[in-house]
Amino acid sequence: MMKIKVGIVGGTGYTGIELIRLLLCHPNAEVVAVSSRSLKGQKINSLYPNLVGQTELEFCDIDDKSLFDCDVIFFATPHGVAMEQVGAFLDKNIKIIDLGADFRIQDTNIYSQYYGIEHTTPDILKTAVYGLSELNHKIIKDADLLANPGCYPTAVQLALAPLLKENHIKTDNIIADCKSGISGAGRNTNINLLYTETSESFKAYAVIGHRHLPEIEQELTKIAKKEVNITFVPHLVPMTRGILATIYVDLITDIDVQKLYEDFYKNHFFINILKQGTYPETRSVKASNFVQLSLEKTKNKLVIIASIDNLVKGASGQAIQNMNLMFNLDEKTGLTQVATIL
Amino acid sequence: MMKIKVGIVGGTGYTGIELIRLLLCHPNAEVVAVSSRSLKGQKINSLYPNLVGQTELEFCDIDDKSLFDCDVIFFATPHGVAMEQVGAFLDKNIKIIDLGADFRIQDTNIYSQYYGIEHTTPDILKTAVYGLSELNHKIIKDADLLANPGCYPTAVQLALAPLLKENHIKTDNIIADCKSGISGAGRNTNINLLYTETSESFKAYAVIGHRHLPEIEQELTKIAKKEVNITFVPHLVPMTRGILATIYVDLITDIDVQKLYEDFYKNHFFINILKQGTYPETRSVKASNFVQLSLEKTKNKLVIIASIDNLVKGASGQAIQNMNLMFNLDEKTGLTQVATIL
Amino acid sequence: MMKIKVGIVGGTGYTGIELIRLLLCHPNAEVVAVSSRSLKGQKINSLYPNLVGQTELEFCDIDDKSLFDCDVIFFATPHGVAMEQVGAFLDKNIKIIDLGADFRIQDTNIYSQYYGIEHTTPDILKTAVYGLSELNHKIIKDADLLANPGCYPTAVQLALAPLLKENHIKTDNIIADCKSGISGAGRNTNINLLYTETSESFKAYAVIGHRHLPEIEQELTKIAKKEVNITFVPHLVPMTRGILATIYVDLITDIDVQKLYEDFYKNHFFINILKQGTYPETRSVKASNFVQLSLEKTKNKLVIIASIDNLVKGASGQAIQNMNLMFNLDEKTGLTQVATIL
Amino acid sequence: MMKIKVGIVGGTGYTGIELIRLLLCHPNAEVVAVSSRSLKGQKINSLYPNLVGQTELEFCDIDDKSLFDCDVIFFATPHGVAMEQVGAFLDKNIKIIDLGADFRIQDTNIYSQYYGIEHTTPDILKTAVYGLSELNHKIIKDADLLANPGCYPTAVQLALAPLLKENHIKTDNIIADCKSGISGAGRNTNINLLYTETSESFKAYAVIGHRHLPEIEQELTKIAKKEVNITFVPHLVPMTRGILATIYVDLITDIDVQKLYEDFYKNHFFINILKQGTYPETRSVKASNFVQLSLEKTKNKLVIIASIDNLVKGASGQAIQNMNLMFNLDEKTGLTQVATIL
Repeated sequence: MMKIKVGIVGGTGYTGIELIRLLLCHPNAEVVAVSSRSLKGQKINSLYPNLVGQTELEFCDIDDKSLFDCDVIFFATPHGVAMEQVGAFLDKNIKIIDLGADFRIQDTNIYSQYYGIEHTTPDILKTAVYGLSELNHKIIKDADLLANPGCYPTAVQLALAPLLKENHIKTDNIIADCKSGISGAGRNTNINLLYTETSESFKAYAVIGHRHLPEIEQELTKIAKKEVNITFVPHLVPMTRGILATIYVDLITDIDVQKLYEDFYKNHFFINILKQGTYPETRSVKASNFVQLSLEKTKNKLVIIASIDNLVKGASGQAIQNMNLMFNLDEKTGLTQVATIL
Repeated sequence: MMKIKVGIVGGTGYTGIELIRLLLCHPNAEVVAVSSRSLKGQKINSLYPNLVGQTELEFCDIDDKSLFDCDVIFFATPHGVAMEQVGAFLDKNIKIIDLGADFRIQDTNIYSQYYGIEHTTPDILKTAVYGLSELNHKIIKDADLLANPGCYPTAVQLALAPLLKENHIKTDNIIADCKSGISGAGRNTNINLLYTETSESFKAYAVIGHRHLPEIEQELTKIAKKEVNITFVPHLVPMTRGILATIYVDLITDIDVQKLYEDFYKNHFFINILKQGTYPETRSVKASNFVQLSLEKTKNKLVIIASIDNLVKGASGQAIQNMNLMFNLDEKTGLTQVATIL
Repeated sequence: MMKIKVGIVGGTGYTGIELIRLLLCHPNAEVVAVSSRSLKGQKINSLYPNLVGQTELEFCDIDDKSLFDCDVIFFATPHGVAMEQVGAFLDKNIKIIDLGADFRIQDTNIYSQYYGIEHTTPDILKTAVYGLSELNHKIIKDADLLANPGCYPTAVQLALAPLLKENHIKTDNIIADCKSGISGAGRNTNINLLYTETSESFKAYAVIGHRHLPEIEQELTKIAKKEVNITFVPHLVPMTRGILATIYVDLITDIDVQKLYEDFYKNHFFINILKQGTYPETRSVKASNFVQLSLEKTKNKLVIIASIDNLVKGASGQAIQNMNLMFNLDEKTGLTQVATIL
Repeated sequence: MMKIKVGIVGGTGYTGIELIRLLLCHPNAEVVAVSSRSLKGQKINSLYPNLVGQTELEFCDIDDKSLFDCDVIFFATPHGVAMEQVGAFLDKNIKIIDLGADFRIQDTNIYSQYYGIEHTTPDILKTAVYGLSELNHKIIKDADLLANPGCYPTAVQLALAPLLKENHIKTDNIIADCKSGISGAGRNTNINLLYTETSESFKAYAVIGHRHLPEIEQELTKIAKKEVNITFVPHLVPMTRGILATIYVDLITDIDVQKLYEDFYKNHFFINILKQGTYPETRSVKASNFVQLSLEKTKNKLVIIASIDNLVKGASGQAIQNMNLMFNLDEKTGLTQVATIL
């Protein structure tokens, strides 16, 4: 059986560990190298005790030879790292899947504005394919450099694509009230992310100008083929995994939205449109690559609700789904685990 | 020192226990009777172990004589109970504060539609005063029968009143995306409220027609002096206490909203308008009667965020605040405890 | 590829749903029937929304013909049910794995004392094999009726077996201070299991005479070949999954305990002995069939710490591990999922 | 009314904020200065949003004049700070209550061994009074320098004192299996304290040699008037507040332990001995200064269970209780708030 040789750059964060967790059960992939600047030589399972007995791999350097023997490299690094380093791998025909933001925003000015640094490799940026698997699967198959979408953008785009594609809603009065588990903020020593500071509390954050806003608007505009403006307010939920997006739109046609969504996603294994009157919960997709969507008309609005696991479909799972597409495997290979719910 | 003699009908639920917790520290009130149909004769502290050593009171019957010696009765009962029982107390000049829904909705048809039963005492209903303390304090002082507001309506009205009062926003495109801790659902043996079914998950519920919707629209319409339509979607947060309301409105004037709110609430002890750029967290008002509000303009919308503790300002705390007003005490008497935050 | 036809009696509880979750990813098993008295005809995925898109199976009756076409039936029922019903299946050479308590306790008097009912099928009881996979794997292979161990007994036996087998500790001064997530109490409408009643709190329960005590002592006595007395106090942790057992024993030999355990379990895939100085966390085995054990000497005691997922190794995972053994499959088939940790 | 002028050194941690929260409701105390090296000039309520609207106080320097106008200074600093700084205040007859460890351990060698630094002011150490309020209240009244006990030591000593005082148990086979909420680890940017690393998990830590062990043994030895050896294993519970100690002892007399405890603590307002057969939960004392104790005999052991709020009775609440004693106030002044339970 073919085994894709996989390297992971930046394996110490939550998207890194989630890649390892999922790839250890992938029948056609093998993790052969995981790099970490700070932990070189240390066993991965000393950092992540769920890997005790699962792998004896040690963290290596970013320039370790083993990474260059890989078929594909996942970058699970903070923004700014991948744009400097992917070139060396692409030159050797190693495919790249970047889970960070460096290759998502096509306009380098907007990138600078939201991420606070210049984009140093705009030529490489031009070759990147935006990897929302269900919406872009055809071009993903041929990608060498894949920009894996952000977690909120994944939920919001999947929720809005069917309506925007056929011009069924107003594009200047869309509200996406989004809620994320705390793992979305990463594995950072930030006092605001302590258990004691987040448990049993709920709040909004980044009310103006969250970094995912330009990514969302860029992609929705492409889907709608006209400018889309969105009000996007993210919130932090006292839970580890999960995103729920509650989206309010104004319908301008009398389309049967339930049927529209069921048809639009009927060939997409990971997308489930719920029966009318039932709504997604984040636990229903916990630790899985699945997406649940529901549609409900209220007096004034159409309310679309989407749930994903931010670490799986919102990051590492979709990255593997994209790897599958890029290597001509069935997109669901290694990703069929049912949500744990409990 | 004057001691108001307090009775509580329906003391086994969370608003009941919260009344007892707060009243045990109230310098001018004394709980003399707590009724429960099912637990008559049992010590309250056998049901609520935080009361061990605090009170030796036992649950009594609803028709226990001691209730009729009270100055005020709090009804902390499911809807349908208070409307049958308050008459007997009002006849004896005992004041009533109903924490349930029976006297909130003025139109008995709408009451029936949302609560599934007929209103049997419409004449008494007409005498009820709606008790959102900050907005209605003048008429509350003279009330004999006070309808204590629902938790979501408290947050949403306080968040919108300054703008609606002076007609600064569109009244047909208001969205209130609200999030509540699980205690809002009460102390019921409902499988959906188990720890295992709610922890580490987030969901919307009652997307169409939550019972608080007509209450919100009725009161907002009164405030605005014109019909107000609102899209209201409640969500369940894996935490016990707290409501956060994220409200999206369209400004139609160029009012300085920060100043508007600071002025509007400047004499109201329990309302804090946060500095611009900071946003409420539910923990900042946890176990307290305080309200935090913030205002933020995004590209398209004004976003108002309000946080309260659903069991205190959203129920039992506001009920005591109203009792204070009804008995000519300082409204903050017994309610100055600082939020626990942790 | 051979597919074992699996039936589940009592599929609505947490061990039932966990069986389904795991078996849907098992390469050699197929769930063909799931019974529920109360939900006959209803889709399983309407009760467990993580199964939307995974299976269209409906709950059937306990006497549904499809159950009798199975190769093995899992009973995930409250005690008292299996003892009445397994006979009909055993008569047709259908293997039985009972996740309840009916066939765990060999002494029917003790069974009656702890479970409050008479044992009605003592003859069948005599044929049952106690299925702690690692300790009893040889006799499990030939079992027709398997009594799957309780969750606490699994953790405690695995923690003590190496020492008791060779008589290295005092058998009358063992203390097992055990902590369990709330799913251990099942999916019951019990007010004490509400989120609001359990979250952010910790307590002991059943300090005298938890039902798992006689099961633990019976099996430890078999292992030690002498009477073992244990003090066993269970506690409830505000989390869904996981058991941690902290066990205090007095060594009576100078054995190298670290080496003893590593050798004892060296051929057992699911058991990991942690390096000295590191201790198990329940998240390290979350949603997996793995067990982590650590050993530490303090001034006076040897402290053994064991962690399992109560729903997997403590119930449904071990049940499938036993099914694998009973059907001559590799014991790890379908059970290699890595713990989610997050 | 007399107002004690209170200063707090190190007001940014959880014991600091808890002092402020409680003292703002204390009728006879006023917080006049709160120091923080790093946040000088910043408003306290910008760090702790529950204080918005409660106080406009700003953090000051440690050598700010206002601290020297105080009647009492609480040190809520990491160990090593107080021993250097209390002298200057004591010289000016300002009383000191140290919530840290610097004045708890009488043997400076043991202090060095467990805390990793030399004790630089052993002469001052000799004057310190150990402040377990219920056990030492007589000498606390005259203390100038009070060493406020650690959280675990508070729970364990209160649980064992009645038995040890009269020599009813073996002193060489005591096991204290203790469980703490995460706030016990303080407000530190430690990756192990993130929500994502602690939520939905349970673990033991510091199995050998937790810093509270010598404090516990020192004080128990004093109480018993003979050497006491204890096995003490702390665990981390996914909750913010609360300690539960489960303690296993061997009785050597046939004393009626229930009566012994009820008598021993009958004049102590904050200590509640639960009725036999009921056991403490940490939520029953949440955010309060109360202690709950239960006693239960199993086949082999007496099991004592104690619960406290680690931040209140285990730190800031007991510190205020001690302040009350030191200033001849009723010990319960300002501390009568009922546990929130929810």
